Amino acid sequence: MSSSRGVRKLEVVSPVPADIDIANSVEPFHISEIAKDLNLSPNHYDLYGKYKAKVLLSVLDELESSDNGYYVVVGGITPTPLGEGKSTTTVGLCQALGAYLDRKVVTCLRQPSQGPTFGIKGGAAGGGYSQVIPMDEFNLHLTGDIHAITAANNLLAAAIDTRIFHESTQSDKALFNRLCPPNKEGKRKFSDIMFRRLKKLGITKTQPEDLTPEEVKKFARLDIDPNSITWRRVMDVNDRFLRKITVGQGPEEKGMVRETGFDISVASEIMAVLALTTSLADMRERLGKMVIGNSKAGEPITADDLGVGGALTVLMKDAINPTLMQTLEGTPVLVHAGPFANIAHGNSSIVADKIALKLVGPQGFVVTEAGFGADIGTEKFMNIKCRYSDLRPQCAVIVATIRALKMHGGGPEVVAGKPLDHAYLNENVLLVEAGCVNLARHIINTKAYGVNVVVAVNKFSTDTEAEMNAVMNAAMAAGAFNAVICTHHAHGGKGAVDLGVAVQRACASGNQQLKYLYPLDISIKEKIEAIAKSYGASGVEYTEQAEKQIEMYTKQGFSGLPICMAKTQYSFSHNAAEKGAPGGFILPIRDVRASIGAGFIYPLVGTMSTMPGLPTRPCFYEIDLDTATGKVIGLS
Amino acid sequence: MSSSRGVRKLEVVSPVPADIDIANSVEPFHISEIAKDLNLSPNHYDLYGKYKAKVLLSVLDELESSDNGYYVVVGGITPTPLGEGKSTTTVGLCQALGAYLDRKVVTCLRQPSQGPTFGIKGGAAGGGYSQVIPMDEFNLHLTGDIHAITAANNLLAAAIDTRIFHESTQSDKALFNRLCPPNKEGKRKFSDIMFRRLKKLGITKTQPEDLTPEEVKKFARLDIDPNSITWRRVMDVNDRFLRKITVGQGPEEKGMVRETGFDISVASEIMAVLALTTSLADMRERLGKMVIGNSKAGEPITADDLGVGGALTVLMKDAINPTLMQTLEGTPVLVHAGPFANIAHGNSSIVADKIALKLVGPQGFVVTEAGFGADIGTEKFMNIKCRYSDLRPQCAVIVATIRALKMHGGGPEVVAGKPLDHAYLNENVLLVEAGCVNLARHIINTKAYGVNVVVAVNKFSTDTEAEMNAVMNAAMAAGAFNAVICTHHAHGGKGAVDLGVAVQRACASGNQQLKYLYPLDISIKEKIEAIAKSYGASGVEYTEQAEKQIEMYTKQGFSGLPICMAKTQYSFSHNAAEKGAPGGFILPIRDVRASIGAGFIYPLVGTMSTMPGLPTRPCFYEIDLDTATGKVIGLS
Repeated sequence: MSSSRGVRKLEVVSPVPADIDIANSVEPFHISEIAKDLNLSPNHYDLYGKYKAKVLLSVLDELESSDNGYYVVVGGITPTPLGEGKSTTTVGLCQALGAYLDRKVVTCLRQPSQGPTFGIKGGAAGGGYSQVIPMDEFNLHLTGDIHAITAANNLLAAAIDTRIFHESTQSDKALFNRLCPPNKEGKRKFSDIMFRRLKKLGITKTQPEDLTPEEVKKFARLDIDPNSITWRRVMDVNDRFLRKITVGQGPEEKGMVRETGFDISVASEIMAVLALTTSLADMRERLGKMVIGNSKAGEPITADDLGVGGALTVLMKDAINPTLMQTLEGTPVLVHAGPFANIAHGNSSIVADKIALKLVGPQGFVVTEAGFGADIGTEKFMNIKCRYSDLRPQCAVIVATIRALKMHGGGPEVVAGKPLDHAYLNENVLLVEAGCVNLARHIINTKAYGVNVVVAVNKFSTDTEAEMNAVMNAAMAAGAFNAVICTHHAHGGKGAVDLGVAVQRACASGNQQLKYLYPLDISIKEKIEAIAKSYGASGVEYTEQAEKQIEMYTKQGFSGLPICMAKTQYSFSHNAAEKGAPGGFILPIRDVRASIGAGFIYPLVGTMSTMPGLPTRPCFYEIDLDTATGKVIGLS
Repeated sequence: MSSSRGVRKLEVVSPVPADIDIANSVEPFHISEIAKDLNLSPNHYDLYGKYKAKVLLSVLDELESSDNGYYVVVGGITPTPLGEGKSTTTVGLCQALGAYLDRKVVTCLRQPSQGPTFGIKGGAAGGGYSQVIPMDEFNLHLTGDIHAITAANNLLAAAIDTRIFHESTQSDKALFNRLCPPNKEGKRKFSDIMFRRLKKLGITKTQPEDLTPEEVKKFARLDIDPNSITWRRVMDVNDRFLRKITVGQGPEEKGMVRETGFDISVASEIMAVLALTTSLADMRERLGKMVIGNSKAGEPITADDLGVGGALTVLMKDAINPTLMQTLEGTPVLVHAGPFANIAHGNSSIVADKIALKLVGPQGFVVTEAGFGADIGTEKFMNIKCRYSDLRPQCAVIVATIRALKMHGGGPEVVAGKPLDHAYLNENVLLVEAGCVNLARHIINTKAYGVNVVVAVNKFSTDTEAEMNAVMNAAMAAGAFNAVICTHHAHGGKGAVDLGVAVQRACASGNQQLKYLYPLDISIKEKIEAIAKSYGASGVEYTEQAEKQIEMYTKQGFSGLPICMAKTQYSFSHNAAEKGAPGGFILPIRDVRASIGAGFIYPLVGTMSTMPGLPTRPCFYEIDLDTATGKVIGLS
């Protein structure tokens, strides 16, 4: 059943069928219909098949003078390993606003990594009656952005090793002559990108012939310290055997072996750049200034020093355009970027949010999800993403489940793949009440940014009214603007109408300034400590390695960047087993790294896996193509 | 200027500007216009932006009863390292047929590898006034097919190492129980793909519980011999440091290290499968039966044994649809697949050719290019591609240049990047005449397939009339149907009108049967020897390793496959320095490998590089994005 605006309301079935069956039961609208609802003219998007379109950045120029809609960020309490339905709630809320409350709305979601789809976890398009469709296209390839990131990341990696190799076999003069070869008229010239390095070196000469031998050496010899290289190769596949490898063992590489490894593609700094950039010109600069390691003298070496910043931008030129898709109820979705939520900031892209805010216009809503719990996702949304975008949300949603709250209240461990303890399947109000300390701290922290906080209780069929009342009372006591029960997984947008109404009221009721947790112009350590305090820590301790890195980044002039903590999502603290709202602990910083192009310093609190593996029986055993219909089967 | 059919004729400038400047000087037609000219309805293609569309395989079902057009294959004489303009001639011929001779025509081209675009070679979209546009989209990403191949190839690679790892740490029973876990009702079942392995093992039972312990072991333990693994990882980047690597050095991999390496993506067997498949169902089977190595008992292990054939097909489901683009003069082009021309067969896809033949219909023309010289490209086109497609060409074009013929006649070595010797820039009819032995052998070999041979002399500005007459005389003496001069590089389609007329006549003048060089049901060695004879060899010699491999493949039941010689393109013989038409040599077979899914055995005549490198100053130094216009600059 379609309304005049093209959206549809779902007929739901109980019990809720499998995600793929729900997704396949709905014939998506042609994406040009979705675009039309947003007043997007065909010259503002490129179709990618019938159900996806890339929205072109040019729409931002055209709508520059239009007003933004309301901006809503969805975070969550500290989750169980099963996830508490943050994406599903994000989608359900938008289905409610668009299909039931007749508001213009755009959902902004991260693009999921393709690798894990074939491993354990399955897809990431929401679930039940709150999903993005077609779910196979959402989970696989999409419009090629992650493939572009893989290609760009690995071109830079190849450029690093090859440069070291060529520098090792050539004199300064030979190297320089190869870098600036004579043209047909016998004249040498610098290519445009070389002027970036010349400028960095303080050389203002414009003719290769004019450089002194010392300048030739400084210019041509990057002198990269192989031990300092932080740039790794990437692949969008769960390939654990690439975590640590030795490269360069072929005979032509003359013994120049080096230990390195692969990360999964979404862990690439280029993904973080894509998520944080604001324009093509800005992306060009960020890609060019990505630091891959140091020279032996300790100077940071960038992609532009290697001459490859322009080529990386060319590879990423289409990836900067967000992909338009739709929910089950025909509301528009912009899928764009999917950076890690630990070593990166875990939020979808600034450009998608900016475009969406213009497209929905005043009184419209843009709902964007922040990865992990609010201690990480929302914190980084505010202090990193909003700092670079200059946008501010009016409302923050915090998704909670009775299951996770019981865990925080002292319930038994929740383990993926194992049956839930009976504590989670039967009423236990005391456990819930005890667990609300976790929710309360997330509310208080989030409210401190100056936004209205709405708590969304994502209801499961086993949850009781008494349990839910306990959560609502605790939420209001902690300062929430509102707290509501949602059943969007079972009922689609209809199940999130109360949430939609609460979010509307929260947005309309104030126009607060965004108060950052820390200013940028304090030291790296002071920034780390401000964030640690928000976790409940009483202090921070640094390893020698972390101290050394902080000193180096400060010396290199990078201390003014925001901080992106790489911490477990399963606790406010560094210890995943500490549930609830731990306090008084000392947060240990093992190491400190930087994504200079993306624009943040990331302290490592513990060890982060950046390359997942495959289990004995990966998901792919179920996945196949029905070759008669062309439909994907077995994707979950 | 557009004709009624939507094609345009070019206004040309002399001297010929840079390729990118010509490409950027023409505003392409919207690809839906090109599709309309081919009577493709919008439900038969998916747009990918404004200038690319994927033509859906469903069009083949719809047009099943239509007649095919003429089928023309373009090969070349043995080339210099500079290339003799085979792609350019293919495009120019089509521009002549479509824009000047008013015939329905489709050009079928290979998708170029993206990696080399940033290395030395630049793009592959033709040149001068005979190009495919937009050339940046042609050379980069296109519609993601190579990225899909990379993802699928590497998922299979990850599945191999992970399976060996999990088998090494688990008992037969634990392994089996993990592969067939109990569902919610506690019941174990086989997934569909497991029945393929059960069938291979001759086990007809359908319930996991019914297997004997010995059957459990046979089923669950692939027992892959790590030393037998031929499946390598791939990347579409020139990364020489990945040629030989050691994987598995992370602590979690418990010392299970292994030496392996990366090839460039187009060297993946999956690319060869894409090029040779005829339908979704056929692709599913080919991907599933790809052999990755042997069990310790010597049994071939396939992708389906690993449970991943279905997932590979899902990753490749859009890649099977060819991409529609256009030439500078607005004639349609199908770009699809780009397998290596040595370790694979070097031809664009069967499905693109099949679709094109239906779309142009009777009296229309499909012109498809075969990689390398005709000794390799055309031979494989006939004996591998046409054997699987059941199509046969009416005409074969052989592209020759005065430059290459002079080289074959004894001219000095031609080296890329070095100035040409004066012999190549001044008239020397004797050198040309002497070199025509190379052309003559290609004509004789090609004619033996039962097709009419048209020689196209790709004229350079320094070539003289006497030189060209020498070639035409030699061509006719060797049995060519016709020989004509072309200037499509300088003049677009107008410069290839004579060639177009000759090709039309050649196609109309006969309806020959295709005579293969060898039948499939003789031994591997007899097939190798038949091909070697066509090179001029008087015999073949095999290393011990080659003998061993031939014996193994024969024992495994693969001796009925066609042969795909991996030989240098720079000579008829194995020695690149032997120009002209060498004879009486013994062809050495160093090793023999197989692409069982793609469907061929490939003997290695010498060493083939499957991963290019980057020079000291790669092309990427010139490549950048004009961020104001979004245009790519510096791509060559």
